[in-house]
Amino acid sequence: MSIKVAIAGARGKMGTEAVHTVMKHEAMELVAVLDYKEIGTTLAELEQFPTTYEVPVYTDFARLVAETKPDVFVDLTNPHFVYERTKEALLHNIRPVVGTTGFTNEQLQELQDLAKDKKIGCIIAPNFAIGAILMMKFAKEASKYFPDVEIIEMHHDQKLDAPSGTGIKTAQMISEVRNAKQQGHPDEQETHTGARGAEYEGMRIHSVRLPGLVAHQQVLFGGTGELLTIRHDSYNRGSFMGGIAFCVEEVMKRESLIYGLENII
Amino acid sequence: MSIKVAIAGARGKMGTEAVHTVMKHEAMELVAVLDYKEIGTTLAELEQFPTTYEVPVYTDFARLVAETKPDVFVDLTNPHFVYERTKEALLHNIRPVVGTTGFTNEQLQELQDLAKDKKIGCIIAPNFAIGAILMMKFAKEASKYFPDVEIIEMHHDQKLDAPSGTGIKTAQMISEVRNAKQQGHPDEQETHTGARGAEYEGMRIHSVRLPGLVAHQQVLFGGTGELLTIRHDSYNRGSFMGGIAFCVEEVMKRESLIYGLENII
Amino acid sequence: MSIKVAIAGARGKMGTEAVHTVMKHEAMELVAVLDYKEIGTTLAELEQFPTTYEVPVYTDFARLVAETKPDVFVDLTNPHFVYERTKEALLHNIRPVVGTTGFTNEQLQELQDLAKDKKIGCIIAPNFAIGAILMMKFAKEASKYFPDVEIIEMHHDQKLDAPSGTGIKTAQMISEVRNAKQQGHPDEQETHTGARGAEYEGMRIHSVRLPGLVAHQQVLFGGTGELLTIRHDSYNRGSFMGGIAFCVEEVMKRESLIYGLENII
Amino acid sequence: MSIKVAIAGARGKMGTEAVHTVMKHEAMELVAVLDYKEIGTTLAELEQFPTTYEVPVYTDFARLVAETKPDVFVDLTNPHFVYERTKEALLHNIRPVVGTTGFTNEQLQELQDLAKDKKIGCIIAPNFAIGAILMMKFAKEASKYFPDVEIIEMHHDQKLDAPSGTGIKTAQMISEVRNAKQQGHPDEQETHTGARGAEYEGMRIHSVRLPGLVAHQQVLFGGTGELLTIRHDSYNRGSFMGGIAFCVEEVMKRESLIYGLENII
Repeated sequence: MSIKVAIAGARGKMGTEAVHTVMKHEAMELVAVLDYKEIGTTLAELEQFPTTYEVPVYTDFARLVAETKPDVFVDLTNPHFVYERTKEALLHNIRPVVGTTGFTNEQLQELQDLAKDKKIGCIIAPNFAIGAILMMKFAKEASKYFPDVEIIEMHHDQKLDAPSGTGIKTAQMISEVRNAKQQGHPDEQETHTGARGAEYEGMRIHSVRLPGLVAHQQVLFGGTGELLTIRHDSYNRGSFMGGIAFCVEEVMKRESLIYGLENII
Repeated sequence: MSIKVAIAGARGKMGTEAVHTVMKHEAMELVAVLDYKEIGTTLAELEQFPTTYEVPVYTDFARLVAETKPDVFVDLTNPHFVYERTKEALLHNIRPVVGTTGFTNEQLQELQDLAKDKKIGCIIAPNFAIGAILMMKFAKEASKYFPDVEIIEMHHDQKLDAPSGTGIKTAQMISEVRNAKQQGHPDEQETHTGARGAEYEGMRIHSVRLPGLVAHQQVLFGGTGELLTIRHDSYNRGSFMGGIAFCVEEVMKRESLIYGLENII
Repeated sequence: MSIKVAIAGARGKMGTEAVHTVMKHEAMELVAVLDYKEIGTTLAELEQFPTTYEVPVYTDFARLVAETKPDVFVDLTNPHFVYERTKEALLHNIRPVVGTTGFTNEQLQELQDLAKDKKIGCIIAPNFAIGAILMMKFAKEASKYFPDVEIIEMHHDQKLDAPSGTGIKTAQMISEVRNAKQQGHPDEQETHTGARGAEYEGMRIHSVRLPGLVAHQQVLFGGTGELLTIRHDSYNRGSFMGGIAFCVEEVMKRESLIYGLENII
Repeated sequence: MSIKVAIAGARGKMGTEAVHTVMKHEAMELVAVLDYKEIGTTLAELEQFPTTYEVPVYTDFARLVAETKPDVFVDLTNPHFVYERTKEALLHNIRPVVGTTGFTNEQLQELQDLAKDKKIGCIIAPNFAIGAILMMKFAKEASKYFPDVEIIEMHHDQKLDAPSGTGIKTAQMISEVRNAKQQGHPDEQETHTGARGAEYEGMRIHSVRLPGLVAHQQVLFGGTGELLTIRHDSYNRGSFMGGIAFCVEEVMKRESLIYGLENII
């Protein structure tokens, strides 16, 4: 029997891909989408979807629940109403999969208690890219044995910030298990400023920006006579979809709230 | 207080490196080496070691134990006498670190019982390269989420066998958690035989052989829109030494027999 | 003064990109497109182009020439009519840039004579990807000094043929300057068939196929103590557009026919 | 007929490797070595060479020439006496291959005139690593088509200077043909200083330092939808030997002075 899924945020970039993912997945059924404004009776009326996508569109969550009875509610909207809706979903025994970060600690605690009480799963995941999460997880693990670490992240040249969020997040995760350590030779000198990259507890982060690149990162670990490299290349938004599908299946098996995919993969 | 170490096989390639490793390690003391033939009174008399290495050489294990009282016995000899000696070490409450594979299942069981009985650690590790072991471990883990896997291993062109032992071992470890799956397009055609590499339960293994190369391997995982790569480069024998030092420290904390470094890292 | 360009095949995948490229290029002006059927008065009427693309569409080449007087004629159609049209362009003193391979030797000779006669450039290029062509060119050059070569090409898993066309073309170009040489150890053994890849005059070609990959190739050269690698990653069709823009500018400076971009870069 | 070679600096690190290279090369014969002090009658007396290396050792260059009549004189000593000796070699019609940089412009000019006069080759090469030179040469060539360039050089963590000499030399060679260009987004921001690396005419250079690494560099070129990478890995000093053998053969074919291997490969 397939999992009945409802999606909020279906018109957004991530949401559109999520709609396709659920529609094509043989073990899932897209029973409804939720939108904050009137956009039509079914997705088929929207330009961005095929005319065969006859999935009803609701603006009222309670009516959506009553009429389509979803098992899982995937919320890819911005953080504004997401707490109230996640709570409501749980109260209706619908399992939430949420892709945002805008919760206070109190809200998270309350959702956790509610999920536990109801004995149903709830997954809140700021990042759905399983490959990137595995990279970070492996990097954290490897740093226990190889404390000398450098990160090279590479992105298209329209990116404004350096290092990337993933680059910093990786260094943070590593620093949870690695003692701060000054790397390189104590007397090393930069003849051209910046050559040795950004510093994070002794680790070094290098940011490459070139046209053509998408989103790539490698984490390098050096030891006597050897090098261990963990690399992730993201070529397009499709890399998030595997994570969403994984969460929809996983949330059905869980009986509590999980924050962050790294805790279940 | 430093760990007192004795080494068998000190004149071999691995053994020589192990001697240097223990001598340089601030938390370890090399108290003796064991050799099957008379080679001198101390290591300092051997050409391959500095004249400062005044470590006594024994040909009799019982005498070595009585006179130098090692905590750990590192055995890097060939498999011929290794079982008897490992047993003897355990009986003397000395913790063995053994780098060979020549044990029968019965012998392993007996050593395991003995270690348990004595409540002391014993590590038997066919492979001391922590980096390579982490690569295999991470590869096994990643294959749960990315069942499409290809392995590229690259070695110097004097290597006789293809794929490498590590390449096959990696595929084996992955196949323990991955369901056999035919990869690639069902109708794919090789216009030049062998292009798609060797097949192992649907995974593909490619063996590159070139002068200049040492020992390198990458494991590639493909998913929608993304690629995850785990790579290990071994540049020289030094890559084994970190593993030996790790085992010497770890065996002091254990109270049973461990077979394979992958089970404790 | 900008270069006046006309394009045939504007509705195809390559053609659509070419239209955008010329429209955005500050030194070029798209004066007309040629189509074999009536599709409208201007590109702006087609769904795939913005309504600002008010470029006239012609079905008759002679009228196109008479009314819009292009400097360069970019032909991205299939080979059927391309010879006649290229000839006609040259006769009208318009410089052709042609992206197809369907010419007989006699036709090429005739076009060559005509270009020479008219003293105008004509570029016929089966491959517009400058990056891929540079890779092949550098690989050919490097093989003079490093005759031990292996090629690893990696594509998405929907590709039917292995090795890829570029992989074979690279080996061919290398074999023009490298004496055939058996690589690897003379006694090497495949314990799993295909591990050592496809053989091409002693070189080895390995074909990786994974979901997520686009089109990637690396050429590896091994020498004593060193490795030289030339790698090209193609992430999307955009990689062809730089080559088309380059040809449009280059054909204005030439006075003869050039076959293959590798001969002018 | 084999090329008769004499070597100065045979006891140094490079020199020792050069001796082995010439001894093993089937088209070369090592007829003598020159040393500034009395070290024995033949190389066989030295600890670092096999007892079969019965090559005479001279302290006097004139006598060496008179008695052993070398075709080529390989000078791997430090710069102190190298100018006088190179001149003397040329005067004796012996072709010099010199691995140092300590010449003034006047000295170079004089040697050039002398070589031209004598119509014999003379090669002065600060860098014998053919692979590294090819990398720089290809990088220079590629930058004409891909002006967006970043360099990542990676070395062991005992290296004091960053960027490496080869990294800077590569950027210099590229800047000879590439117009200075600011890369990356004009508004990009470093949240951690140094992330974007060192700046060289708009190009970016990143220096990775890790234990285990030897000497590695990659040059990345980004274009719309594509990436071209040229990479060189040097694993040990052996990588210089191919260049020395190449120079010995090449200097026999030349009739003038060549400065820098990049000008003949």
